[in-house]
Formats: sequence, C-alpha cells, structure tokens
Amino acid sequence: MKVFGVVGLGLIGGSMALGLKAANAKLSVIAYDTDDQALAAGLALDVIDEQAASISDLSARADLICVCTPVMQMKRVMAELSNFEGTVTDVCSVKGPVVDAAKELWGGLPANWVPGHPIAGSEKHSVRGARSDLFQNHKTILTPNAATLPDALNQVTKLWQTLGAEVVSMTIDHHDDVLAQTSHLPHLLAYTLVDVLAGFGDEREVFEYAAGGFRDFSRIAASDPVMWHDIFMTNQAALLKRLKTMVAALEDTANLIENNDSDALMLRLKRAKAARDYFTGLQPDEP
Amino acid sequence: MKVFGVVGLGLIGGSMALGLKAANAKLSVIAYDTDDQALAAGLALDVIDEQAASISDLSARADLICVCTPVMQMKRVMAELSNFEGTVTDVCSVKGPVVDAAKELWGGLPANWVPGHPIAGSEKHSVRGARSDLFQNHKTILTPNAATLPDALNQVTKLWQTLGAEVVSMTIDHHDDVLAQTSHLPHLLAYTLVDVLAGFGDEREVFEYAAGGFRDFSRIAASDPVMWHDIFMTNQAALLKRLKTMVAALEDTANLIENNDSDALMLRLKRAKAARDYFTGLQPDEP
Repeated sequence: MKVFGVVGLGLIGGSMALGLKAANAKLSVIAYDTDDQALAAGLALDVIDEQAASISDLSARADLICVCTPVMQMKRVMAELSNFEGTVTDVCSVKGPVVDAAKELWGGLPANWVPGHPIAGSEKHSVRGARSDLFQNHKTILTPNAATLPDALNQVTKLWQTLGAEVVSMTIDHHDDVLAQTSHLPHLLAYTLVDVLAGFGDEREVFEYAAGGFRDFSRIAASDPVMWHDIFMTNQAALLKRLKTMVAALEDTANLIENNDSDALMLRLKRAKAARDYFTGLQPDEP
Repeated sequence: MKVFGVVGLGLIGGSMALGLKAANAKLSVIAYDTDDQALAAGLALDVIDEQAASISDLSARADLICVCTPVMQMKRVMAELSNFEGTVTDVCSVKGPVVDAAKELWGGLPANWVPGHPIAGSEKHSVRGARSDLFQNHKTILTPNAATLPDALNQVTKLWQTLGAEVVSMTIDHHDDVLAQTSHLPHLLAYTLVDVLAGFGDEREVFEYAAGGFRDFSRIAASDPVMWHDIFMTNQAALLKRLKTMVAALEDTANLIENNDSDALMLRLKRAKAARDYFTGLQPDEP
C-alpha cells in the first residue's frame, strides 16, 4: 500500500493515519470529509498528507480506502465508491446496516469490501484527538462473508495488525448483539443518566457535588452525539432487547431495596464486583 | 490536635491520616478496626502510628475521632463513643441514618458530633489505596444542626481544609437527595449493568469485547459492596424516587428509538453532551 485513503476524518481515521505512517514513513494519506475544518486540522497536524476534493477523487488516488463516517451516512458513501477496485473497509460500530445498504445498492456486499470494527475510542472524537497508539492491544473485529476476496481480507487484517490490534472474526449478527451489550447499552445508560440529572433542576448543584464515579460515568456521554444517534437507531433490535433486560433488572433491584432484602442485594453487588474484577484481569495493559 | 483517632481504617480514614500527618509531622494517628489485617497494613505502610484495642481504648487516647465505617455499623460505633468528650465527625455517604441512630441512642445528635461527607473516593477502597492528596480540590459537605458546638464545627472545618478540601454546609435532607442523584443512582446503574452483562451468558466474551467506555462505567462497580449495600438500603426514599425517574427516561428513550423519532433522540443526546461538557468545565483540576 502506497496511498491510504480515509473517508470521514475524525478520531478513528486520524489515528489509523498516524499509526500507519509511524510504521511506514513512505506511506501517503489522503482524506475526504464534508467538513473542511476537519481536513484543515488533519493537514495542520500532519495527520494526513493531502485532501481529496470528492470521494471519486479519493478513489482515483488511493490503494486502500477506510470509511469512517457515522453509520447512517454509509449508504451514500458506498454508492460513491461503486467504481473503486481496491480494497475497502469501514469501522462502523453496527455491521448489519452496512450489509443492508450494500444489498440495496448492489444486491450484496462486494468481494473487495471487508467490514470491520476496532474496539477502541475516546470521548475526544475529532481528528485533534488522534493518537498513533489508539488501537494498540485493542481488538478489531472483522465480519467478512463467503464472497470476500482472501487478498482483501489479508490486506485489512495486516492493516490492523500494523496498528497493534488483535484481529478477530465473527458473524455480523453476533457482532451487533455483543456490541449492543458491551458498548451500545452502556452508552445509552450514560447519555440518559446525564440528561436525567441535568433535568432534575439545579444542574449546577447536581454537577458540583458529583464525585469521581460520576465523572467516569459521564465521560461516555461526551462522545459524538451524531455517531451515537446512528448507532442507537440502526442497532435497534439488539439494543432494545438488551435495554429491556436492563430496565427489568433495575426494577428488580428497586424491589430488593424497597423490601429490605439485604441478602439478595448484597449477593447482586458482590456478583457484580466479582465480574468487574474478572474483567479487569482480562485487561493487563490498561491502567 | 495531637492525636487523631480513626474508627474503620479504609481508603478514607487512611487518606485522612496520611494527609493530616503530611501537614503536621508531630501528629499521632491511632486507629481501631474489627479487621486486624487493615490495622496491620496501616501500621506497615506508616499510615497510622498505633492501633487501639477497642473503641473505648481509642476514646481514652484521641483528641478528635472520625468514624469511617459503613453506614449500617454507625449506630453500634456511636453507642460505644457515648462517653467521648472530644469532637467527633463521620464520613457516611448518607446522613439521615446517622441522625436517626443518634436520636434512638440519645434523643438527638450530641453537640460534639459534626456529621460530614467528603465527595471523594476510589475503587481502591482499602487502606492500601490511601493517598495524602485524595481530598485536594474536592468538596466536603458538613451537615451541622443548631445544637452543634461552634468549636467542634470549626475544628472539623479546619481538619478538612488542612486536607485541601473545600468545606460546604447543607441540611441533611438536601445532602441525601443531592447524593442520591449524583452518586447513589450512578453506582446502582453501574452495579446493575455489570451484573446484567455477566448474566447474559458468555461472560468472558462479553467482557473481552468491552471497550474503554465500559471500562469507565464498570470501574464504579469495583467499589466496596458492603459500603454500597448500606448506602442503597439507608437512602431508600431519595434513591428509589430518582431511580424511578431514570427507569421512566430509559423507557422513553427506548420509545424514541423504536418509533424512529430521530430528532427527539438527537436532541436528548446533544443535551446530555452539553450538560457533560458543562460539568467538565466545573472540574479544572481533573485530568
């Protein structure tokens, strides 16, 4: 790969650009974005080398393209990439809609398209937050199908390995359900909690007395609203199913408290702490 | 103050000890705990200078005592402090039960007792996590009443100021309601989410694909289960009221998603992000 192309220059595309350039000084990165300020920032920060005037301009110059737009803009971008013959990948947090859009456009996902999703991010969602090590020791999930070109799959696998990620494969349905649980539901809770707290009246007082725990919690709600709007809307079935279970569990916990069921509440808290401690043990590289 | 006494040696009591000794090299700290290992760790780490054999032993030797036990152990500890004539304070996250216990024991809170609550903590809840700067630039809420001795109030105010905290006053009911919103509800959500995710079946897979956002979220569930059991049980009225609002908001959000009400969902996410950004602006000293 000599020229890496990015559609949608934010935290993810910018971090890929920095990481790939750190590994290969000869690599050139070109980006297209509807937001000129993102492109200007990318150039000023040396995250990208050139900007493209359009997606077809990018297609004509790049060897491999990664689409990093919010989910609901994918179909429009995909249509403009129809004639691109190199390998394409994307980083959408929901994979079902990417395949659905491809089906509507072309009857199915093209053989040169390898859907992907790096399990990494930050509340600093613009290109200004880009870091070459964002994906180091994080997983990247690829969801290829039977038609995917082996060469394209290898190329995208190597791309992520170069960025320090551990590449794993799974089906699209399984991906969307696992992520509904581990990412989409927590984000929905965090956004809703912050909105509820702000709505309780004296916002300033509520936030002034918020301690460290709340800070951790609310950091999630600082993520990009457009990106999360699209995720919630497009992963509806899996997310609503998991949300229903969560609401039932909250009502159950409320009943334990109301009925002074001390033993059952204690069991639940200890079980959660044990699960969390187990989770921490799986993350040797994190602080 | 020459001798500072701690009942219940964990993160909070240990951090107070370290901070007060850093400010006054001549200060001696004595602690009592039902857990001998906590006392041994406190001595080995030079967090405390001596251990007391009992609460009455501690009473005979300390000038000022801070009670740092979980809420539901307060009444038992208070009864044993009946004859102590120096100033007493506590750090319970719920203030109502402290006053209720005092009413049952003595008909009301003694004039030498200044209820307090530092808005600081960490998931490292044992004395091994103690840090002299834990309270620096954090608020400590005191909830004195008309009977509180001005000298006792001044002494406890100075204690927290020495530890770098900003001391503020409020009524007990107001404290318990504000904290239900900013601390108890978020912790209840975090514990319940982690428990729900662990219960979805393949715990290992769920936690393996959990990204940074979830890590922030679940850190809260690593706190001490006994402490949080007591908080949830004793701040029942305020907590259940706020939880009910949260559950209604989650159901409302689910409806927006199910009905594809894109504008209303977007408004909610943007409002939450604005509130979170406002909150961040109030925390100049935090990373």
